Amino acid sequence: MSKSAVLLITCPDQKGLVAAIAHFLFEHGGNILHADQHQDAELGLFLMRVEWDLAGFALDFSEIAARFDPIARRLGMKWRLASSSHRPRVAVFVSRQTHCLVDLIHRYRAGELGCEIPLIVSNHPDGRWIAESCGIPYHQVEVCSGQKEKAEARQIELLDENRIDLLVLARYMQILSPTMVARFPNRIINIHHSFLPAFSGAKPYHQAYERGVKLIGATSHYVTEILDAGPIIEQDVVRVSHRDGVQELVRKGQDLEKIVLSRAVQWHIENRILVYGQKTVVFA
Amino acid sequence: MSKSAVLLITCPDQKGLVAAIAHFLFEHGGNILHADQHQDAELGLFLMRVEWDLAGFALDFSEIAARFDPIARRLGMKWRLASSSHRPRVAVFVSRQTHCLVDLIHRYRAGELGCEIPLIVSNHPDGRWIAESCGIPYHQVEVCSGQKEKAEARQIELLDENRIDLLVLARYMQILSPTMVARFPNRIINIHHSFLPAFSGAKPYHQAYERGVKLIGATSHYVTEILDAGPIIEQDVVRVSHRDGVQELVRKGQDLEKIVLSRAVQWHIENRILVYGQKTVVFA
Amino acid sequence: MSKSAVLLITCPDQKGLVAAIAHFLFEHGGNILHADQHQDAELGLFLMRVEWDLAGFALDFSEIAARFDPIARRLGMKWRLASSSHRPRVAVFVSRQTHCLVDLIHRYRAGELGCEIPLIVSNHPDGRWIAESCGIPYHQVEVCSGQKEKAEARQIELLDENRIDLLVLARYMQILSPTMVARFPNRIINIHHSFLPAFSGAKPYHQAYERGVKLIGATSHYVTEILDAGPIIEQDVVRVSHRDGVQELVRKGQDLEKIVLSRAVQWHIENRILVYGQKTVVFA
Amino acid sequence: MSKSAVLLITCPDQKGLVAAIAHFLFEHGGNILHADQHQDAELGLFLMRVEWDLAGFALDFSEIAARFDPIARRLGMKWRLASSSHRPRVAVFVSRQTHCLVDLIHRYRAGELGCEIPLIVSNHPDGRWIAESCGIPYHQVEVCSGQKEKAEARQIELLDENRIDLLVLARYMQILSPTMVARFPNRIINIHHSFLPAFSGAKPYHQAYERGVKLIGATSHYVTEILDAGPIIEQDVVRVSHRDGVQELVRKGQDLEKIVLSRAVQWHIENRILVYGQKTVVFA
Repeated sequence: MSKSAVLLITCPDQKGLVAAIAHFLFEHGGNILHADQHQDAELGLFLMRVEWDLAGFALDFSEIAARFDPIARRLGMKWRLASSSHRPRVAVFVSRQTHCLVDLIHRYRAGELGCEIPLIVSNHPDGRWIAESCGIPYHQVEVCSGQKEKAEARQIELLDENRIDLLVLARYMQILSPTMVARFPNRIINIHHSFLPAFSGAKPYHQAYERGVKLIGATSHYVTEILDAGPIIEQDVVRVSHRDGVQELVRKGQDLEKIVLSRAVQWHIENRILVYGQKTVVFA
Repeated sequence: MSKSAVLLITCPDQKGLVAAIAHFLFEHGGNILHADQHQDAELGLFLMRVEWDLAGFALDFSEIAARFDPIARRLGMKWRLASSSHRPRVAVFVSRQTHCLVDLIHRYRAGELGCEIPLIVSNHPDGRWIAESCGIPYHQVEVCSGQKEKAEARQIELLDENRIDLLVLARYMQILSPTMVARFPNRIINIHHSFLPAFSGAKPYHQAYERGVKLIGATSHYVTEILDAGPIIEQDVVRVSHRDGVQELVRKGQDLEKIVLSRAVQWHIENRILVYGQKTVVFA
Repeated sequence: MSKSAVLLITCPDQKGLVAAIAHFLFEHGGNILHADQHQDAELGLFLMRVEWDLAGFALDFSEIAARFDPIARRLGMKWRLASSSHRPRVAVFVSRQTHCLVDLIHRYRAGELGCEIPLIVSNHPDGRWIAESCGIPYHQVEVCSGQKEKAEARQIELLDENRIDLLVLARYMQILSPTMVARFPNRIINIHHSFLPAFSGAKPYHQAYERGVKLIGATSHYVTEILDAGPIIEQDVVRVSHRDGVQELVRKGQDLEKIVLSRAVQWHIENRILVYGQKTVVFA
Repeated sequence: MSKSAVLLITCPDQKGLVAAIAHFLFEHGGNILHADQHQDAELGLFLMRVEWDLAGFALDFSEIAARFDPIARRLGMKWRLASSSHRPRVAVFVSRQTHCLVDLIHRYRAGELGCEIPLIVSNHPDGRWIAESCGIPYHQVEVCSGQKEKAEARQIELLDENRIDLLVLARYMQILSPTMVARFPNRIINIHHSFLPAFSGAKPYHQAYERGVKLIGATSHYVTEILDAGPIIEQDVVRVSHRDGVQELVRKGQDLEKIVLSRAVQWHIENRILVYGQKTVVFA
């Protein structure tokens, strides 16, 4: 597969946006592979993702930004350029439940995820076996009561050493500090085991059981300072009945969690997500 | 189709329950058509629905209760007996949006619902055409600001005159008074246009749009004194995306509402729902 | 809502397509409302739907085609131009089961469908009540054994008189002749009551019951000469179990049929469907 | 969790069945934990699953069969007795795609599956890493063209040595011989990567792509002599669009395959499946 480039653009909606972007690509011989756009009429906002073939494109990838910049300035764009050959560096955080970790690792090994996973961080030893079976370093950083700061200092050290681009909380059962969150704006993906905004906070399956819902869900979202309130990336649900106790809800939910988290990670890696306000646009 | 009888039973879980019930039916020549049971281990509760053929049954339907009563007393049962040939009398309440009403009426006409619908009550004229096309009386009871009591008095008069067993709120956008709710315990079914407990209260589609969820839902539930907190009967969801504005959410949601409400009404009519605590068991 | 125009384009994939189209719109002051495109890499095909505001557009709607034609010729496009204010004329064909008809009529009355429905045609009287409640002429054209040609001649007469653009087979249980099909290429939408290609032909719910499937489906598709093999527009499924006899499959399936058919009709009316080969692209 | 026993019963429907079974359990002090039954009215068949607590039960597990036998004979039952503490021995067969294998192994390690997995058999080396990470013997038995008999002889040797109860084909891409199938009646579970009966045979995702379906599915079923025609245990689907090429169908489908296969395996292990004719009843 040849290399491609992706432009992600957000700007005030106005006439001529598509023409300007398409013309820029065409004049340098770009063959558009995928293009998707969205207007938020209420906010007067235009969002676009365009991906084109770098084979036959007149500009080097390294030149594109400088050449596109004047257009972007003229039209008031916030934009980001990415290369399909760039593999972001992902750290996976996990606690005792390893189903999401194992799922991600298998996808990674199978070549489904276009990223590097240079390390796994956990406050428990449970995921070590799968990490070791793949030769990925597994760092056990315990989070002792009242000493979260110390643990986080070590985590940040590890993330810095490994030049991490994206943090995936694959059922990591600790709340990150605002400092940590601020270091990775829209670059921490969490899986919450309920259909948010229902059942935010602790023990959502217990809450769902108590309420007697007929469907349970899972939600992947970017982490912000406010617990379980960040922009939602993906959600899914599965049917349950009175026959399902809390244990069955947990089991059924875990199958959702794996899928809902892995979709979010994949879309992030493939530069398919644009965040605006408290929402996402996913050009999937 | 021959007539059948249904027993709905709730009691403390204990040995010999099924044996006692099955023996009672067998000794009078009953052929069980369907039986379903559930144990709530946490609460030590046993719930059962059993339906049997009245053809060849040694007891007249009118005798069954008296004969079953001693068994029920001995085992501490709360129970209810129903005949499949009994058609409960249902009143449908509706406001301006008539999609649920039209859906129910069509099912009623097509013979899907084993009930009578002797009247429709509305605070608006919008549903009159469909009522009239079927010859069902349509009572427009306006609910003027500050005069809800007066309107409810008229509604209760209508319900009494028509000996109503079940009230269906098919997008009726008024909150019933505690008095009204108390007259029909577990016999008022409402459709709420969100996946409860997310987005309870007013304008749930607007709330869902603001939050940026990726699925929207609908919930049918029994009405209790606490708004949108009654026992959930059925829920379903449909996928949405950033492409869907509030209007599209409303449209997609309406298709859910029709299905989720009609399932609840049908199950109620067929005596398939047992309420315990804040939950339902649906033997569907 | 102001008027908008839609261009639907199919052509060989090549560089500069988007630039050419976007430039054409921009130079005449067009504000793009929605744009969606698809490349079929295997076939080297480019498909696009672009919708723009006619308010502020420099060309009259009647002038657009002539002005766009040179671009289309140069790039080898097959294309179609539509105005959002044009309401296509739709004939609904139905037999004895009226659930899809009632559903379409309610959406039509509620203003959901941007079309006219000047007539309903049926080989049975069952749908007359709903037609009459809305004042839509209901033509009962009986299809006697061995006299299908005669019936079809009458149907074509009715369709011609009413200048019909789209034929919707809302559970019309007769097979149309090749002549009839040829008169409305990609303009006859049928609802088949199974998940095609499983269970094509007669009595699909019976077939599904015999096979013991755990989900049943419905499929809306354009009608071609080959039975149940036309391009699929939409499909959906619902879960069933051993508890569901054929009657329950029919009931559950009918809820699917209504939704799956109405989506297809709406997308067609909104010019969201492009057919290529035996498939559709739906820009929904 | 205390031990429980399960009775699975199939017999001609007749009065007194439930009474006889419930009485048998009650007279020996059995506390029913779960009971589920089904009547196939068309075939006049009664199917039941009843699970009861062995704590407090007057009979030893080893005595139950002899005591129940007279009742079973009298009522013409085919029946099977199982203990919840019995862990069936499962062999997993896999080829190059390991997603289902990894999924099963993780569930096994997490304690979700009440079975033993004493060996994995493959015609390829791809799954060796996950087997080794858990210490499960991995037998690579190559299936050379024209020498399938030789491979199968070796496989049967392995299955016999390991006293295997259940064979799980976790994307094993070889067709088993009738001899092999006959050795494990209703004890070989396969995952087929389509919504059967659509797209049986080879390359179902390619078939689905060609046909332009809007949903793809997966089906787990018991293996019989006729390819892809055995009794269906579970099915599920996921939505796809024109944006999804064959590769995306494969990816999306793999997530289904894992879930649909693991549900079938779990239900089989928990003695929840009754086969009759070409269908299953799943008491889930």
